[in-house]
Amino acid sequence: MNGRAVRYFLGHILRWEAILMLPALIISVWDRSWGAINGFLLTIAGLLLVSSLLLFLGQKGDHSIQAREGFVIVGLGWVLMSVFGALPFFISGGIPRFVDALFETTSGFTTTGGSILTNIEGLSRGLLFWRSFTHWIGGMGVLVFVLAIVPQSKGNGESLHLLRAESPGPDVGKVSPTMRKTTQILYAIYIGLTLVTFVLLLLGGMPAFDSFCNAVGAAGTGGFAIKNAGIAAYSSYSQTVLSFAMLLFGVNFSVYYLILTRQALRAIMDEELHWYLGIILGTLVVLVWNTRHLFTSLGEAIHHVFFTICSIITTTGFSTVDFNTWPEFSKWILVLLMFMGASAGSTGGGMKVSRILILVKSLKNQVLQMVRPRSVHLVRLNKKAVEPATVRGVHVYTMAYFFILAISALIVSLDNFDGISTLTGVIACISNIGPGLNMVGPTGNFSQFSDLSKIVFSLDMLFGRLEIFPMLLLFSPAAWRRKG
Amino acid sequence: MNGRAVRYFLGHILRWEAILMLPALIISVWDRSWGAINGFLLTIAGLLLVSSLLLFLGQKGDHSIQAREGFVIVGLGWVLMSVFGALPFFISGGIPRFVDALFETTSGFTTTGGSILTNIEGLSRGLLFWRSFTHWIGGMGVLVFVLAIVPQSKGNGESLHLLRAESPGPDVGKVSPTMRKTTQILYAIYIGLTLVTFVLLLLGGMPAFDSFCNAVGAAGTGGFAIKNAGIAAYSSYSQTVLSFAMLLFGVNFSVYYLILTRQALRAIMDEELHWYLGIILGTLVVLVWNTRHLFTSLGEAIHHVFFTICSIITTTGFSTVDFNTWPEFSKWILVLLMFMGASAGSTGGGMKVSRILILVKSLKNQVLQMVRPRSVHLVRLNKKAVEPATVRGVHVYTMAYFFILAISALIVSLDNFDGISTLTGVIACISNIGPGLNMVGPTGNFSQFSDLSKIVFSLDMLFGRLEIFPMLLLFSPAAWRRKG
Repeated sequence: MNGRAVRYFLGHILRWEAILMLPALIISVWDRSWGAINGFLLTIAGLLLVSSLLLFLGQKGDHSIQAREGFVIVGLGWVLMSVFGALPFFISGGIPRFVDALFETTSGFTTTGGSILTNIEGLSRGLLFWRSFTHWIGGMGVLVFVLAIVPQSKGNGESLHLLRAESPGPDVGKVSPTMRKTTQILYAIYIGLTLVTFVLLLLGGMPAFDSFCNAVGAAGTGGFAIKNAGIAAYSSYSQTVLSFAMLLFGVNFSVYYLILTRQALRAIMDEELHWYLGIILGTLVVLVWNTRHLFTSLGEAIHHVFFTICSIITTTGFSTVDFNTWPEFSKWILVLLMFMGASAGSTGGGMKVSRILILVKSLKNQVLQMVRPRSVHLVRLNKKAVEPATVRGVHVYTMAYFFILAISALIVSLDNFDGISTLTGVIACISNIGPGLNMVGPTGNFSQFSDLSKIVFSLDMLFGRLEIFPMLLLFSPAAWRRKG
Repeated sequence: MNGRAVRYFLGHILRWEAILMLPALIISVWDRSWGAINGFLLTIAGLLLVSSLLLFLGQKGDHSIQAREGFVIVGLGWVLMSVFGALPFFISGGIPRFVDALFETTSGFTTTGGSILTNIEGLSRGLLFWRSFTHWIGGMGVLVFVLAIVPQSKGNGESLHLLRAESPGPDVGKVSPTMRKTTQILYAIYIGLTLVTFVLLLLGGMPAFDSFCNAVGAAGTGGFAIKNAGIAAYSSYSQTVLSFAMLLFGVNFSVYYLILTRQALRAIMDEELHWYLGIILGTLVVLVWNTRHLFTSLGEAIHHVFFTICSIITTTGFSTVDFNTWPEFSKWILVLLMFMGASAGSTGGGMKVSRILILVKSLKNQVLQMVRPRSVHLVRLNKKAVEPATVRGVHVYTMAYFFILAISALIVSLDNFDGISTLTGVIACISNIGPGLNMVGPTGNFSQFSDLSKIVFSLDMLFGRLEIFPMLLLFSPAAWRRKG
């Protein structure tokens, strides 16, 4: 383990967290929210102190890292970010209990959007801003951000390992030949799409503060609302803008890169994109059929069902209606979408469409193999054979996903709430969605769970956002042994 | 596809089904239950007619079979058995609707034990006998039985393929060098253990008829009760006998073979056995702690919790108490046991302990692999490396299990019953347990579901009992193409 490199990167992450808190501090100063000012100032001071110390201890020498260091930096980095990010809520008194503040912040960074707040509008604007902004920071990844900015010693080794550890999906697509360039392009697309959403919301008459918070909430596929009524508080136009924004942020960003570099044909041939859009369209038809009777008109049904599907498949978690009152069949479809999630390489969570594709194809191959034991079948995606190691990785990832789901639900069930609340609560956290069903449905929240459950939920969110293995590695003694 | 061999083996299966209906017919004659006599006579006539036709068409010529034929024979054989087995219930009027009779019989053969009957004691003794006896027939497998008896053309090729397709667990352990011998030994152990259970129940004062039905119900790890009150209708002694009987039938039968051939040391070193017993003991402690307040004494708590755990882990489904009223934590543990099930090579269902072991170990290897990318880690069971193809098979099996679970629950959710009833109903059928939670809990049944759901549940039971692939192959066009 190269401790120097770990300290170096962690130092950079925390320094950037301090810088990213400045807008929220400025808003708090503008509003004269003394509690929030206090919270942000103290936290920023703490962050600068710790990051300076880490950078001092890690600045000089060799920063080369292997897969192991990559996972550890990402895992520890996200845990530290969440802990420090929770301090403004706690110090300001906006969220009086630390475990609640930690849950809320982890939910923010991991773009989950599940909340323990029972009165969202009771928070000051500075805190609300920070809360929503964490979605945007976490959506594309902090390490990706750091890699885009921090000068690197040499080569692409470290960047690749860090990017692998933080990026969603079965494999990191190399958008551009150098990793630094890749991360810069990804962030440019991210900022561009966020700005477009923000402007479109403004044009619909939404206040600038709300437009910003909702735009970053959609961009990170986070889902924190800043109104108690959720997105139902806004006009149909705004809701439609957000529907399409969520849909677009759930697409693999390499598709946008291809379009930008005039390879639109290659972009629209992407197999995962077809399935992603096809599933949205298919479930739209089925859910409208199943919930039609709950709405006053067909148009209204299509509007709200489309919003809900875009919100759930991208694992954003915004809501305009309480889908917990929908028929069981519709709810079950939503739960399946929660599992699946959005495209790899998007800001969305869940298992990712491409992983599901690989799973289904390897299942089909197994059946063919049984029919003709001597034949060899490869899993193909976009007409290219997927490496057997990647297929195995997807299998093991899926297994790990269900193991963590099972163990988490077991611990949370100690709170003795109904099974669907427990189960969908855990799914909503692992898949980084936010709302589940029953108690944690769109009109509910996570406030009633015990501290132990809230910690489990917080860990689940990190497991989900970092795709399990960086977190799992933190708990593995083998990762901490000195010798590589 | 060798159609001749398929007809030959299907003919044998159905002829044996006719013979196995005779005891139930005799009881019906003794009791002068005219409806049941009518039902059994007509069914036996039909079975003999169809089986003679199949044997006539398949008797001569080449009976050699490959993996594909093995799966098709097993898949079709079980479907046909269930359809014919349902006829006595339907013709006699004991179960007036055919889809209900089919559900009940499939539940019997697959050793699920889930019922659509609201008044079990309303059935005649002949029908009750047949209902329980299907558990015993299905427990060890009909093909295993046929292989033990029907003379084979040459070699072991066909037997191996049939046994592979019907036997539970990741791989068929070769107990004895020849397959025919293996199947005979397995059946001898099965009959012996059933007889011991029967005699022990008799000694406790249980009526002979009840003793037989409960002994075969435990032996096949089926779980049909013949009293409306379930096993709560019997003495503590009988319940304890059944607890241990279930526990023993959930052990890999090769363990008994080793003991019989004086290799007891090798038998008790079996890794799966350690985990199986360890999990029973571990969950016993935890569940007694969690449910202690529901019982009048610690002894009573241990008694009923032990019975419940043995019933659920072996996927039998007998019940002495309504575990649906237990705390959520206990229920969640039971659901996890439902998923896992008993040992490979036992009569129990579920995913099997050894599969879970392979999954956990391959997960651990993946983490180690990430720490040290150049190292190679093999999954080991009983200190021997598990073939990578077997590990991959376990992965794909698990995936398939969850896919079928998801799709089944989706269809069943159209009935709009609560999510836990839907979900645990499907789990209880795929894992061949019987009772789930809520509506399908120990005091409930499957009667209220729609016909569509009952058909889905029946298919799930077959998927579970035959470990998915033989059934999946029946739906695959590739399996039916003429050219191999």
